[in-house]
Amino acid sequence: MASSISNNEIKRIKALSQKKFRDETGLFIAEGEKIVEEAVRSGYGIEKIYRREDIGEEAMSRISQLSSPSPVLAVIRKPDEGSLLHIPSGGLYLGLDSIRDPGNLGTIIRIADWFGIDGIYAAPDTVDVYNPKVVQATMGAIFRVRFRYCNLVETAERFLERGGKVYGTFLDGNNIYSSTLDTGAHSPVMIVIGNESEGISDAMSEHVSDRLFIPPYPVDEPGSESLNAAVATAVTVAEFRRRALE
Amino acid sequence: MASSISNNEIKRIKALSQKKFRDETGLFIAEGEKIVEEAVRSGYGIEKIYRREDIGEEAMSRISQLSSPSPVLAVIRKPDEGSLLHIPSGGLYLGLDSIRDPGNLGTIIRIADWFGIDGIYAAPDTVDVYNPKVVQATMGAIFRVRFRYCNLVETAERFLERGGKVYGTFLDGNNIYSSTLDTGAHSPVMIVIGNESEGISDAMSEHVSDRLFIPPYPVDEPGSESLNAAVATAVTVAEFRRRALE
Repeated sequence: MASSISNNEIKRIKALSQKKFRDETGLFIAEGEKIVEEAVRSGYGIEKIYRREDIGEEAMSRISQLSSPSPVLAVIRKPDEGSLLHIPSGGLYLGLDSIRDPGNLGTIIRIADWFGIDGIYAAPDTVDVYNPKVVQATMGAIFRVRFRYCNLVETAERFLERGGKVYGTFLDGNNIYSSTLDTGAHSPVMIVIGNESEGISDAMSEHVSDRLFIPPYPVDEPGSESLNAAVATAVTVAEFRRRALE
Repeated sequence: MASSISNNEIKRIKALSQKKFRDETGLFIAEGEKIVEEAVRSGYGIEKIYRREDIGEEAMSRISQLSSPSPVLAVIRKPDEGSLLHIPSGGLYLGLDSIRDPGNLGTIIRIADWFGIDGIYAAPDTVDVYNPKVVQATMGAIFRVRFRYCNLVETAERFLERGGKVYGTFLDGNNIYSSTLDTGAHSPVMIVIGNESEGISDAMSEHVSDRLFIPPYPVDEPGSESLNAAVATAVTVAEFRRRALE
């Protein structure tokens, strides 16, 4: 029946819920049939796959990060940062100016996947992308979207030096629907997403070349004070892609 | 210093975390300076407001539903369902075909507020809108958006009988950007939002008059299998409002 898993192995897997141990080992975990299947298909290095039918229900619930443990958990090697180390010559990118909520980051990665974003740059105090809550919220999109932590202000500067654009949404920005949008065909374009409560930082704002605004309805009567960070990302990116398809 | 709050009062407030007691009493709670201020401004019936400076930190942490209790908590009377009891003659509405996650429902209400949605109809097995997690996630939008639980299939039928439209997003729907969208100027329009894992139910699908699709990018290569329910709502509603503003 159940093959054995040692207490030490359980301890090492559980430790991967902490960033410190993920950084030390270069490993992270993903749970669930679909997401593990996507990890395998993506070509990520799979360290080991644990199945409930093999290790037993009790061991599974000990290594799981979920309130209802799924039947399968994979320990996966983090990829290297690859091509995002160099400033690209074109394409559409997101710049995360410190997203703090794991659910929001997961949702943003899922949006980036759906809309074919070429890569995500994140300020260092953005939540860790290999946090189990982020991994689960991406529903597998994490294995298809390139992601890199960097000095976001410097990266934005490099984008501008290359003749690119840096967009950001602000309450006093220009109506996105009546603005010209560069979709990255000839130079790199970054859409900056601000922090959930602080928005885009002052340091980053200085490097935004084009200030946008998602109009409420009716236009002059905003009800809410703002849209959720992931929602604003979705509406903005969808509009960039609508233009590219026109 | 701290005025007294009895153990019985604390118990009654804590009980409001359960739907059963919210239904029995017609009360719900909201926490935080901003959201309580919005509740007061909205004209909702305020049963009582509790402040940390009055009742003390320990009592506050006992009545709070939050992991970090905020300095103020209000017990609020649920509104009656008002004008949503009648099928409207025009306007843009959402129909929630069983949203289960409190965070998603809160985000959808915030989207509805930003984009001036005229009301939300929800199938009975949608999560309770007065669940504290939903209330907090709306960031106060709950006090500005009309909401009603109903037989959603019947409501959709009535919309169609009135010459209105019922839109829904499906993976095999028509590209939303090349579709004609009725924005509710002359008859009532409902946008149906499907359940997080099941999408729009078969029974509801039969009453969808116009099937839409949010195209991924590139169009023929969807990465993710789907967008999150709240994200799909945002992109769809934003496009309806963009058309109305054109």
